[in-house]
Amino acid sequence: MGDSFGHLFRITTWGESHGGGVGVVIDGCPAGLEISEAEIQYELDRRRPGQSKITTQRKESDSARILSGTFEGKTTGTAISIMVENQDARPQAYDHLKDLYRPSHADYTYEAKYGIRNWMGGGRASARETIGRVAAGALAKKLLKHWNGTQTLAWVEQIHTLRADINPSTVTEEQIEQSIVRCPNPEASKAMEQRILDVRKKGDSVGGIIRAMSRSVPVGLGEPVFDKLTADLAKALMSLPATRGVEFGLGFQSVSLSGSEHNDAYVIKDGEVRTRSNRSAGIQGGISNGEDIDLRIAFKPTATINHEQETVTRNAKSTTFQAKGRHDPCVLPRAVPMVEAMIHLVLADHYLRQNSSRLG
Amino acid sequence: MGDSFGHLFRITTWGESHGGGVGVVIDGCPAGLEISEAEIQYELDRRRPGQSKITTQRKESDSARILSGTFEGKTTGTAISIMVENQDARPQAYDHLKDLYRPSHADYTYEAKYGIRNWMGGGRASARETIGRVAAGALAKKLLKHWNGTQTLAWVEQIHTLRADINPSTVTEEQIEQSIVRCPNPEASKAMEQRILDVRKKGDSVGGIIRAMSRSVPVGLGEPVFDKLTADLAKALMSLPATRGVEFGLGFQSVSLSGSEHNDAYVIKDGEVRTRSNRSAGIQGGISNGEDIDLRIAFKPTATINHEQETVTRNAKSTTFQAKGRHDPCVLPRAVPMVEAMIHLVLADHYLRQNSSRLG
Amino acid sequence: MGDSFGHLFRITTWGESHGGGVGVVIDGCPAGLEISEAEIQYELDRRRPGQSKITTQRKESDSARILSGTFEGKTTGTAISIMVENQDARPQAYDHLKDLYRPSHADYTYEAKYGIRNWMGGGRASARETIGRVAAGALAKKLLKHWNGTQTLAWVEQIHTLRADINPSTVTEEQIEQSIVRCPNPEASKAMEQRILDVRKKGDSVGGIIRAMSRSVPVGLGEPVFDKLTADLAKALMSLPATRGVEFGLGFQSVSLSGSEHNDAYVIKDGEVRTRSNRSAGIQGGISNGEDIDLRIAFKPTATINHEQETVTRNAKSTTFQAKGRHDPCVLPRAVPMVEAMIHLVLADHYLRQNSSRLG
Amino acid sequence: MGDSFGHLFRITTWGESHGGGVGVVIDGCPAGLEISEAEIQYELDRRRPGQSKITTQRKESDSARILSGTFEGKTTGTAISIMVENQDARPQAYDHLKDLYRPSHADYTYEAKYGIRNWMGGGRASARETIGRVAAGALAKKLLKHWNGTQTLAWVEQIHTLRADINPSTVTEEQIEQSIVRCPNPEASKAMEQRILDVRKKGDSVGGIIRAMSRSVPVGLGEPVFDKLTADLAKALMSLPATRGVEFGLGFQSVSLSGSEHNDAYVIKDGEVRTRSNRSAGIQGGISNGEDIDLRIAFKPTATINHEQETVTRNAKSTTFQAKGRHDPCVLPRAVPMVEAMIHLVLADHYLRQNSSRLG
Repeated sequence: MGDSFGHLFRITTWGESHGGGVGVVIDGCPAGLEISEAEIQYELDRRRPGQSKITTQRKESDSARILSGTFEGKTTGTAISIMVENQDARPQAYDHLKDLYRPSHADYTYEAKYGIRNWMGGGRASARETIGRVAAGALAKKLLKHWNGTQTLAWVEQIHTLRADINPSTVTEEQIEQSIVRCPNPEASKAMEQRILDVRKKGDSVGGIIRAMSRSVPVGLGEPVFDKLTADLAKALMSLPATRGVEFGLGFQSVSLSGSEHNDAYVIKDGEVRTRSNRSAGIQGGISNGEDIDLRIAFKPTATINHEQETVTRNAKSTTFQAKGRHDPCVLPRAVPMVEAMIHLVLADHYLRQNSSRLG
Repeated sequence: MGDSFGHLFRITTWGESHGGGVGVVIDGCPAGLEISEAEIQYELDRRRPGQSKITTQRKESDSARILSGTFEGKTTGTAISIMVENQDARPQAYDHLKDLYRPSHADYTYEAKYGIRNWMGGGRASARETIGRVAAGALAKKLLKHWNGTQTLAWVEQIHTLRADINPSTVTEEQIEQSIVRCPNPEASKAMEQRILDVRKKGDSVGGIIRAMSRSVPVGLGEPVFDKLTADLAKALMSLPATRGVEFGLGFQSVSLSGSEHNDAYVIKDGEVRTRSNRSAGIQGGISNGEDIDLRIAFKPTATINHEQETVTRNAKSTTFQAKGRHDPCVLPRAVPMVEAMIHLVLADHYLRQNSSRLG
Repeated sequence: MGDSFGHLFRITTWGESHGGGVGVVIDGCPAGLEISEAEIQYELDRRRPGQSKITTQRKESDSARILSGTFEGKTTGTAISIMVENQDARPQAYDHLKDLYRPSHADYTYEAKYGIRNWMGGGRASARETIGRVAAGALAKKLLKHWNGTQTLAWVEQIHTLRADINPSTVTEEQIEQSIVRCPNPEASKAMEQRILDVRKKGDSVGGIIRAMSRSVPVGLGEPVFDKLTADLAKALMSLPATRGVEFGLGFQSVSLSGSEHNDAYVIKDGEVRTRSNRSAGIQGGISNGEDIDLRIAFKPTATINHEQETVTRNAKSTTFQAKGRHDPCVLPRAVPMVEAMIHLVLADHYLRQNSSRLG
Repeated sequence: MGDSFGHLFRITTWGESHGGGVGVVIDGCPAGLEISEAEIQYELDRRRPGQSKITTQRKESDSARILSGTFEGKTTGTAISIMVENQDARPQAYDHLKDLYRPSHADYTYEAKYGIRNWMGGGRASARETIGRVAAGALAKKLLKHWNGTQTLAWVEQIHTLRADINPSTVTEEQIEQSIVRCPNPEASKAMEQRILDVRKKGDSVGGIIRAMSRSVPVGLGEPVFDKLTADLAKALMSLPATRGVEFGLGFQSVSLSGSEHNDAYVIKDGEVRTRSNRSAGIQGGISNGEDIDLRIAFKPTATINHEQETVTRNAKSTTFQAKGRHDPCVLPRAVPMVEAMIHLVLADHYLRQNSSRLG
């Protein structure tokens, strides 16, 4: 259960790292949107392993096919199915995982819950599952651009102990993509790159913080009570693998301010209601106020490391485990498009929901 | 939209601070649970304004009535309706709010979204909305206790700049309730109490951090992809008013560790699969592993302060606003039962969902 | 579970015939709709027992209060709570029902499912549950009138063996309401009235057929696959108590025609695409085509009769049961507003869903 | 929207008759169910065109592949993706459909709703869409058999004006499958076969009635209010193409009985609560009572005929249309497995929902 997300722009993902493939069905994409496989592929390539020297060297081509829901290059309003076939299936490469639980992976919890697990790779816990999200996010991104010119950028703000100084208001997509770390501060990017290479050499891994900003967001997205924009974004982002926290605006730092320091005064700019500061991070009472949405997500260090680790077998015996092959020392560069996709999905869904807010 | 939460244990709240009342309908509570109005009232009294000298002095008796869904003291399996009538309705007390937007409140976003708002109080953005959640949480709490002896405690860990040193593993409900701040460290509690009183004197407000821990959680709660336990808890908690962030385990601090430092080794304790450390905070791959769930929520300082603030009118003119009457300088003591309620609601829902995981 | 209906205009009903009351929460009604308690009361009075000499003589005043979601006479876009308090609570009147199962009632299935039932009245199976539906339907009706001038009329076409000859295209609300049977053929209405009185005298009951027609329906309501307009209407109507069948257009009679006899030719009328005949009953491929929606619902004879009937006790002993007091020999006149309400709810929900069909 | 069905056993179908393929994602199938592609293929072959001389002669091999959600022949509890690739793609064969609306097809309503339609075949309105339902139904069927030995059989009871006399209590799967009409009365089957061949010769089409019976249904399936078993079955069945009505038990005939004639007396048989008669058709108050579920669905004559018909173009000009090639004069034999699949899906979903009814 729980493989679907969204209320009006609703996606259902499927697929494991080992099996026929992975994919997504999008139910509720409005008719008339121009979309090509190339546009989807662009986003998939950004999340693909092996795209640079600092990501995992596993090769996955991840070629997306649109199987339904478009006609002559446009969405028809009916279910859109997108699929990526799996290629690299070498069952024997996973034999050593069959009878034990990798530490801090989902092996144990899956088996405890279901009584069975696909031990070839991580099953649904594999990062490969996010292919469907990123593919669907490509459509949501186009919708948002069409509707209101809304743009969301995400970038790496911190890797391990290295925090980059970045002005979120001026960051561009180009700056982010020029860095293989996806950190738009060239100096910090260099240092982070080196840190990741060092960590890999030690067979270890590191996490970090991704920051995201949405610009030109329409006023009025989000629902008052449970489906606040903050709440739905938090769920969307915390559903990504390896996430440990999410915060909006000043987040955990906001608690050391007083109300008089934190409140955003309303002012009139160019005839519009705006806030002088944006400590609300674009969302007040769970509803967007038109200012930039600003948030951060914490990713723990990847669970897969090349050290020998203490663990137990399916038969409850103590053993040790050491991962084989080259591992991914840091998922953050590849997580950037996942974060953007999740934000796009939430905003597109709420944009459609907002259509029903008023009598009209 | 968005007034419902949960998939199998599903609640729908309704009501504004001004109007006939507030309430909740619970759809999906299993039949046979003993529940009394007194048990619900106990939780409501903990979230009630005026319960101590540091909360708002507004008096609300908040008397809960169960209107349906129980028979001879037990749930019948059908919709449970719980209602609290509003009492303190003095429309004229809100006249000065009619034509302006209070800074960092939801006044502007509601009006921008709906073209209309109930300006007597905060409408659905009022903390009074949470009465329905807390009432429903009382039933979820009893279910969890019955099923697995699961217990969730929440407490105040930080108020403004004051952080309390607390051992989460040994905190008891009694220790929390002995403190009017709901901080189970007596010394810190005293200091926090004083800070709140000082801030109130200045007409200002402060926020803080609530920490929560769930013990005796069954293994296997949470779904693999979007409805991860972390994701659903994050949504639940971020749907509470004034929240700015949520983190699990080490949260944002986890990023400065390496994988070899953060991973939890599996060990066998008393014949059961356990983890030596609990940096996973009880959830791996989105599914509970039986260890304690440990999380933190950041609350910004309350928007209502007694300072004169810059704002604008509905007609887009600059003006100033100063709240009248006694305000609530810090919501955290009252937010503790709200946090517990949201966690209870998520766990109970996932407990029921887990019933369908295996063929059986 | 299952106390909610609708996707965007979503209602949740609660309440038993015996308990604090019955009600409904409407989540998703657009802001800005003018609505009064009187408008809701008008519909409730049409479904009220005791409204004429042929319905049950039980007196229920059924006074509706709007508890939330409106302000100064208009909907605010947030959850609307409507409640009717119960009055006639004489527990002792039900003592004889405590330990047995009334034939063809839900007593046995409720107890088998839940292990407990509210034996004072029918619990959620009571026709009193429909109060919430009818109240919510009053808002949906106003929305539909506002949006497209859509009007739905339902009337009694058959009672027991008496079938009325009625031209559905010319029926008016006044004609229906002039008949206490709600059959707009005066002669047939007379005969039906007499049949109902005769049946009551014998302590027996009868069922019948309600026909409904929706006019000025916008083109494009309904979704292609599972949420076809026919499917959602069928579910809505079959969720009413005592229903046994639903059919659209010629329904079961359509099977004796050939395709060449049944197909509706497209023609241009006043510049618009229309069909020459309307055997499709306004819905093609599950989506409205702008022609009148035309349907029928079969209601079985009411289960409550004054005859002595064979049944069993909770302890699996044979016994007999005879209902006490005056019973309702025929629910159809009161079911007419229920049918209209369910149709209004489905159409309003699909109207809002249709807002998201195109890129716009 | 609306491509998903079910609450706990939830399916999402996708695909058009022309495009990459058709398929289904099943979210919520419990782990541990043995399932093979062959078992799915068996059901698909029963709905396949070209399976006998009386169905359409279009050849579709409809080979099902399970792409995810199983491991070593068993379900893993995660999303199951099943796909059938499209083969027969001859775009030019549809050129004559491009600019006009086929009478009583969904061409016009799709285009009016979405502003675009896939005119190669019927888009989502194609009967090919039901492949996903039938594939998913194969899993639901196995679950139901495992849980309670529940068996559902559907058969053709009427074709055009020919009604077969059949004892529903003794019908077997073998009897049904021996008839290419799927009518388990050999004599009637012969006559129906001839009628279909005659009608095809005239280029016309006929509809009919399918009856279905579910045996060994557990007591307690169905929810009290909106999600009554009758309501959910009605929706499921009315979501199939060409359906015009559904009835349970005596259905529309029940209205000519009195309550004393229609009520089912409770009796004790073999220590269990049973009903002497089964006019309730196995469902009372929306909840199964353990007796056989008995229902009928009316299918109108297929819209595709080889006659010249009056219609209009996309530019609102009058024109005529005559279908090319061999058409399917009667969908009923192929609709039998679709009906069974929809019933299986509803029962499996409600079986899982029922797990949460009691405290346990």
